[in-house]
Amino acid sequence: MSYINLNNDLPGIVGLMTYSPETAKPLNELAEILLRGPSTLTSAEREMIASYVSHRNECHFCHSCHGAAAAHHLDGDLDLLDDIKNGFQKTEISDKLRELLNIAGKVQILGNKVEEKDIEAARSEGATDREIHDTVLIAAAFCMYNRYVDGLGTWAPEDKESYDETGRMLAHEGYGSSI
Amino acid sequence: MSYINLNNDLPGIVGLMTYSPETAKPLNELAEILLRGPSTLTSAEREMIASYVSHRNECHFCHSCHGAAAAHHLDGDLDLLDDIKNGFQKTEISDKLRELLNIAGKVQILGNKVEEKDIEAARSEGATDREIHDTVLIAAAFCMYNRYVDGLGTWAPEDKESYDETGRMLAHEGYGSSI
Repeated sequence: MSYINLNNDLPGIVGLMTYSPETAKPLNELAEILLRGPSTLTSAEREMIASYVSHRNECHFCHSCHGAAAAHHLDGDLDLLDDIKNGFQKTEISDKLRELLNIAGKVQILGNKVEEKDIEAARSEGATDREIHDTVLIAAAFCMYNRYVDGLGTWAPEDKESYDETGRMLAHEGYGSSI
Repeated sequence: MSYINLNNDLPGIVGLMTYSPETAKPLNELAEILLRGPSTLTSAEREMIASYVSHRNECHFCHSCHGAAAAHHLDGDLDLLDDIKNGFQKTEISDKLRELLNIAGKVQILGNKVEEKDIEAARSEGATDREIHDTVLIAAAFCMYNRYVDGLGTWAPEDKESYDETGRMLAHEGYGSSI
């Protein structure tokens, strides 16, 4: 259970958002724009960036939710969650996305770890300024969500099958009430 | 200048928010609630947490803006910015705030670095569940803002005097249009 009394038994950020609806509102709005808003990156690509950063931040809940959301934007196969942990060995991703994931990984360590050469490498694979901006902000935002979830010691289901329905909802219904 | 073309010359997150007003909206709303909304923590205390975390994330722009905002909630002395860097050696802060800063520092490293004993130490100095929640979310949110600002290579004025007017505006006018 979480470090504070949330007055509910809901897992991860869902319990926190139920406890604090006033902060949940902008947190959900940001996720909706970043992951499902208009973009030349697909929602599957953006959810994969979110899940990848969450895994690097050791946040099991967010890695699983957003990996499952990415899966539901694709063929629904939850083995994607394991492949995200393994650095996308099986999933076919574009060279552009691979370079954007490199930038996201630098952002996960610290903002100033991103170098001009990382930006240039993404550009050389066709990434636009807007895609680079959104990648950095998605990675930065999950450095927040992940710390919020784990810093308050919330609980999370262990097995990936438990995230199937959440992933479906996030992919197809969005971030209206939970992330 | 920043890694991408922002079509403006504004520093730090101000340039990013002008470039991307759709994401600026929830980012500003979150900051307004966390730093100036109703709370049993003063806005000066919350801005000090924000500035402290930003310094630990090596984000000069955010450390300076929010340190200056904290100063303007107090006596306006910008020497506070140096003292935040030095771990609050001169500023009189409560034992409760010192324990909340300890939690914020753990969150800055990674969410799962916060331990039950950190929470108990804050509680023993009178921190409420709500204050602990807000401290964790402020620290987590600045792990986002800091990475957004530095991950896109934005520029920032060097000397603390340059942040005086921004600090005054953030303290007394709020996060309506900039952070």
